[in-house]
Amino acid sequence: MSNYVTIRGFVGTEPKCSVAGSGLPITKFRLGSTNRFLDKKTNTWTDGETNWYSISLFRQLATNAGVSLQKGDPIIVSGRLRIRPWVNEEGKSGTTVEIDADSAGHDLVFGTANFRRSSADRNDA
Amino acid sequence: MSNYVTIRGFVGTEPKCSVAGSGLPITKFRLGSTNRFLDKKTNTWTDGETNWYSISLFRQLATNAGVSLQKGDPIIVSGRLRIRPWVNEEGKSGTTVEIDADSAGHDLVFGTANFRRSSADRNDA
Amino acid sequence: MSNYVTIRGFVGTEPKCSVAGSGLPITKFRLGSTNRFLDKKTNTWTDGETNWYSISLFRQLATNAGVSLQKGDPIIVSGRLRIRPWVNEEGKSGTTVEIDADSAGHDLVFGTANFRRSSADRNDA
Amino acid sequence: MSNYVTIRGFVGTEPKCSVAGSGLPITKFRLGSTNRFLDKKTNTWTDGETNWYSISLFRQLATNAGVSLQKGDPIIVSGRLRIRPWVNEEGKSGTTVEIDADSAGHDLVFGTANFRRSSADRNDA
Repeated sequence: MSNYVTIRGFVGTEPKCSVAGSGLPITKFRLGSTNRFLDKKTNTWTDGETNWYSISLFRQLATNAGVSLQKGDPIIVSGRLRIRPWVNEEGKSGTTVEIDADSAGHDLVFGTANFRRSSADRNDA
Repeated sequence: MSNYVTIRGFVGTEPKCSVAGSGLPITKFRLGSTNRFLDKKTNTWTDGETNWYSISLFRQLATNAGVSLQKGDPIIVSGRLRIRPWVNEEGKSGTTVEIDADSAGHDLVFGTANFRRSSADRNDA
Repeated sequence: MSNYVTIRGFVGTEPKCSVAGSGLPITKFRLGSTNRFLDKKTNTWTDGETNWYSISLFRQLATNAGVSLQKGDPIIVSGRLRIRPWVNEEGKSGTTVEIDADSAGHDLVFGTANFRRSSADRNDA
Repeated sequence: MSNYVTIRGFVGTEPKCSVAGSGLPITKFRLGSTNRFLDKKTNTWTDGETNWYSISLFRQLATNAGVSLQKGDPIIVSGRLRIRPWVNEEGKSGTTVEIDADSAGHDLVFGTANFRRSSADRNDA
């Protein structure tokens, strides 16, 4: 589906949890994902540049991720891309690449996980 | 990338771990994923049909998933689709829809996870 | 998004156009997509097995594809996977792997295209 | 696959074709893609913000797209995301969101296309 991505990477900043005025739980962190490419000279897979994303989680996913994810954890994230240009008060401008995540979990390629189901309503998904 | 998918669903069968003659660890299970659609009459999100996939995990992911995943767990899986027609000895035929997974993890929409990093070599990914 | 895929492949059967009783235009054809993999012995990209999908297009996309696509054309298709087990009257069973396509177009890796915009309403998308 | 996306959108700038010193054909343009969301108050699909991407095409795809795509054309593009922070000589900084496209084609939801196969080598893909 257009603008949807799945990213494998690592949690690059300590997740910050907050609650919006409406009562909506939100968790945010930065995700780094390093592209791998085949070096044709050496015939080996090599690390390329790292893409950095601003991840936003909402509702039950925000709450569960807040207690499950730590800086440095390898994760898989799926969600919708939002590319936002911004200008601040000082006239400085930039672009933020966000993902509003539908789902996130630890990448079991890199370790084991002990899962405990919450009383999450399916409608929270 | 062509034939790559990300699936959110639940582990439908107890994961089976084995080791190939070459020493390669393999874990297999069935994954059910229910499409959700907007019912225009009632204006509510409704469960549609469930897609069933045969998931294959290899190497460190197979080993870690074998001790982390249980039947019923909600997970997110990313990998390559393989659609295989088959005919057995009795002349019966069918089609298997497989995913060779790159990555898998518990879906934190539905619960919390306690992650422990293994000594996984990046080259296993 | 779960169960969504993008497939690059070739139109494997002549597209069949029809109109449902409700007046909905539908176009169907089979799509073959061959996985490519790196043969580590020869260090060359090699064709693997071919996945076959049953593609369904609806509304304006069905009409436009019906006059644009021919058997053999290389295309890119994006849509939702539906895996359907079936049993026919004779007791024979099987599985169909369908994609309800959101979008489809000729793959410009393999040729050039002369495009003519129709009066498609955005709501048809 | 990590960092791969499929984007439906429209060509936002006239495609620019060039040839790198190595003889590699390159075509570049900007792609706008507008997220659609369901407005729960009015129960209608509504346009949200537009994501802007810098698209790069190479080899045969660059050559074919150069003669096939025009500003305003609705297209589907599949490729790898690259998020690049930059600083110019004047100390100004920003971020570019690029897609190195594997494939691109006209979106047949919005019109018809007359395709002509080139003598593209499969190895160009």
